[in-house]
Amino acid sequence: MSTNSRSDLEPFFYPKAIAVVGASPYSNDFRWGGKTFIEGLVAQNFLGRVAPVHPKAENVLGIKAYKSVRDIPYDIDLAIFSIPASAATQVMEDCVAKGVKFVHIFTAGFSETGLEDRAKLESEIVELARKNGIRVIGPNCMGIYNPDAGVAWVNDFPTEVGPVGFISQSGQIAGHFISAGRERGVRFSKVVSFGNASDLQCHDFLRYMADDDKTEIIGCYIEGLKDGRAFFELAKEITLKKPLVVWKGGRTDGGARAVSSHTASIAGSVEIWNALCRQTGIIQVDSMEDLVSTVTALQKLKLPPRPNVAIVGGAGGGSVTMTDDAENAGLSVPHLSDETTSGLGEFVPVHGQSVKNPLDIFSVLVNPDHFIRLIELLRDDPNIDALMYHQRVEWALKRESIFLDVILDMTIEGAKKLEKPLFLVLAESSTLEGMALRKRAEGKYNAAGIPTFPTFDEAARAVRALSGYHRYLSTRS
Amino acid sequence: MSTNSRSDLEPFFYPKAIAVVGASPYSNDFRWGGKTFIEGLVAQNFLGRVAPVHPKAENVLGIKAYKSVRDIPYDIDLAIFSIPASAATQVMEDCVAKGVKFVHIFTAGFSETGLEDRAKLESEIVELARKNGIRVIGPNCMGIYNPDAGVAWVNDFPTEVGPVGFISQSGQIAGHFISAGRERGVRFSKVVSFGNASDLQCHDFLRYMADDDKTEIIGCYIEGLKDGRAFFELAKEITLKKPLVVWKGGRTDGGARAVSSHTASIAGSVEIWNALCRQTGIIQVDSMEDLVSTVTALQKLKLPPRPNVAIVGGAGGGSVTMTDDAENAGLSVPHLSDETTSGLGEFVPVHGQSVKNPLDIFSVLVNPDHFIRLIELLRDDPNIDALMYHQRVEWALKRESIFLDVILDMTIEGAKKLEKPLFLVLAESSTLEGMALRKRAEGKYNAAGIPTFPTFDEAARAVRALSGYHRYLSTRS
Repeated sequence: MSTNSRSDLEPFFYPKAIAVVGASPYSNDFRWGGKTFIEGLVAQNFLGRVAPVHPKAENVLGIKAYKSVRDIPYDIDLAIFSIPASAATQVMEDCVAKGVKFVHIFTAGFSETGLEDRAKLESEIVELARKNGIRVIGPNCMGIYNPDAGVAWVNDFPTEVGPVGFISQSGQIAGHFISAGRERGVRFSKVVSFGNASDLQCHDFLRYMADDDKTEIIGCYIEGLKDGRAFFELAKEITLKKPLVVWKGGRTDGGARAVSSHTASIAGSVEIWNALCRQTGIIQVDSMEDLVSTVTALQKLKLPPRPNVAIVGGAGGGSVTMTDDAENAGLSVPHLSDETTSGLGEFVPVHGQSVKNPLDIFSVLVNPDHFIRLIELLRDDPNIDALMYHQRVEWALKRESIFLDVILDMTIEGAKKLEKPLFLVLAESSTLEGMALRKRAEGKYNAAGIPTFPTFDEAARAVRALSGYHRYLSTRS
Repeated sequence: MSTNSRSDLEPFFYPKAIAVVGASPYSNDFRWGGKTFIEGLVAQNFLGRVAPVHPKAENVLGIKAYKSVRDIPYDIDLAIFSIPASAATQVMEDCVAKGVKFVHIFTAGFSETGLEDRAKLESEIVELARKNGIRVIGPNCMGIYNPDAGVAWVNDFPTEVGPVGFISQSGQIAGHFISAGRERGVRFSKVVSFGNASDLQCHDFLRYMADDDKTEIIGCYIEGLKDGRAFFELAKEITLKKPLVVWKGGRTDGGARAVSSHTASIAGSVEIWNALCRQTGIIQVDSMEDLVSTVTALQKLKLPPRPNVAIVGGAGGGSVTMTDDAENAGLSVPHLSDETTSGLGEFVPVHGQSVKNPLDIFSVLVNPDHFIRLIELLRDDPNIDALMYHQRVEWALKRESIFLDVILDMTIEGAKKLEKPLFLVLAESSTLEGMALRKRAEGKYNAAGIPTFPTFDEAARAVRALSGYHRYLSTRS
């Protein structure tokens, strides 16, 4: 039942013609349905053919509609079912008759309900498909977002292509990752939401992305695997070439119960899962925030060989608590080299500051010349593998607006000169004016290719993830 | 050396006349200094007398200045030193001659530098003061914010009085807490930043706040205690009357090193600290986010007897991962009672939803009648002690603006009807429009007395904190 190579799934990720079954022209804008998928294709400027299917419609969004899949006068690579579960058997028979290659069942109300008759219906429909050479994605999922092919399940996903592939058992988590990631500069090669996994499995999509040249980093959100061996064997092969970041849902008892209601999966043992991830070089995350931060860091930063960081940007108590956060995340905040300490002593006054790590040197952070000297010292410091810089831009509200740009330009220049990864924390603001200023800074950093992190904790966990992956790779080479 | 009752510190918290020594009229707006303190007093409409002291100034911000503390023609309760460390001995002698009651040394550059001569200077100055009946706050700290007396160290703190007292070894953390807390509806009775604690200690301020009727909740940020026994004995007494929330900086090796550079404190053993906190009913937090969330919750919510929560507002993967987060935070996500489950079954369609806990019931969340029925079922459910509701307001961007108000009003009505604490997570947005909408919702909830939490994790830790404190109290009564 598993796919053997990337080419098997090519018509799914790059369909030439899509039928959207259950595309009601009457549905209102607030309800998800067939029309939403068509809007996604329009927004992405899909260049293939689109065939809305509806018993009564002449056209949907100006596109000619058909009464049945059988009536479409050209070949269909992918049919999306947005119809009641009870109608799915009939529509699948139509797809068999038409010779459709892939069926994506968006519809929910199958095995995840926990009801026996609905689980039976799911397996009957999938059996009908498989017997006739049709592969099924879902049910209970959003399907694909592939900006390279012009396919998306909503109309507001980015149209630009990027290096990140994402495979998700939850459509909500996939959608949230795409939206939250775009603000941080993450762009996608392909995303797939695969729901109940009644036919095509996580490892099938993983195989595709492993072989896909446009995918350089792979992320997964998984609730349960039907074939764990296939997944981890593949993971072991992939992680030598591309980083693989995995978020596992259902790690607790209550979460496992929720998994069963969500996608009818068996969550499995956390201990075994963790051990397999360690052995296969998988980077584990356990929240949306860490998924976004880790993938952002992988997309834009070099891997630090060790988790040895210099910390700058805290004043007093902030320095203390950031150091606690760093060490709690498994990082080391080592002593700086004698060269760095004495070099800093040349231009940092002792009064109210500290040239020990964590560095409490506010006077340096408002003086571009001093800042670049700091960067050069840290670049040459053999004790330090990465710099964590906590920057707060809110204070610029009280100053001339040019001042903020001076600081941003200084930081961008420093990031280049450092030659080690810069984990730049752009502190969240609690006021709307502060947020607007932060957005401006984030936009400028994104444009310069510098990732930013909203909290120190997230940045610290990203350092741990990247240095841990470096360590894994170095033991395998 | 320790204070015995609240009245000892009364002239410090409610000074009738303040001298600000080192109030340069020439300092620019970007430098902290004596002028900043005077601006704080002006902004708070301080009704006592203010005497700027400066060798050359005739007046500062229009207020008559004096060449020396000795020249001031009225009694001084509090003198703030904003002068170089090297001038502190001379000014302290002036204060002795004048009969000043309290000296707050804002100036840094003493024992926290790690330099022997500067540590010696600090103890000499404090000895001079103590010998002559002067109590010292600091050095290396911001002093007091007391809106009830019209005292603040900057000009943008809230002028309204609230129930929260805060004692902080770091001025930066105190300032950040005041700003971040105000956005969440936290208001303060008194805040004190006490730095190196060369004379007055954490427990002295704690004693004052314990006896202060206007303080109902006490928070602390502590780097190290010089008299741990006094602190914990007092804590044990306080927690039976008022919640005491403590954030300890310097819990890791690196953090402990930073503590020494910051306030010359000895951080001490984490294990002993944790045990003492447990035994004395202290609520521990370990980040600014959790400090704000826990204090906000204590200010506005009843204590849940058990950490047994119903979770609502997640769709699919969101339900799964929130349940993981809840259980990882030590909460329980129990089965709902049969009455609740069958009651929900009457109006929740099975298709794509789940009436098990976590509840995945989006149709209920957009229907005020159904929502109130849900609330009534949870109110009567003996398995549930609190409701966690994850609300995302961003989607309202795509709808008519009235729709958001319908949802907010529905939530406010539900919070009242529930009769159990509602931990309302108002999800952060990654876009500026989304943030503006979120701010609008937060403002409306604040006005209705409903606390909001920016992330599910923070809300979950607040549930744990409040239910843990309830458990502590129940074992002591």
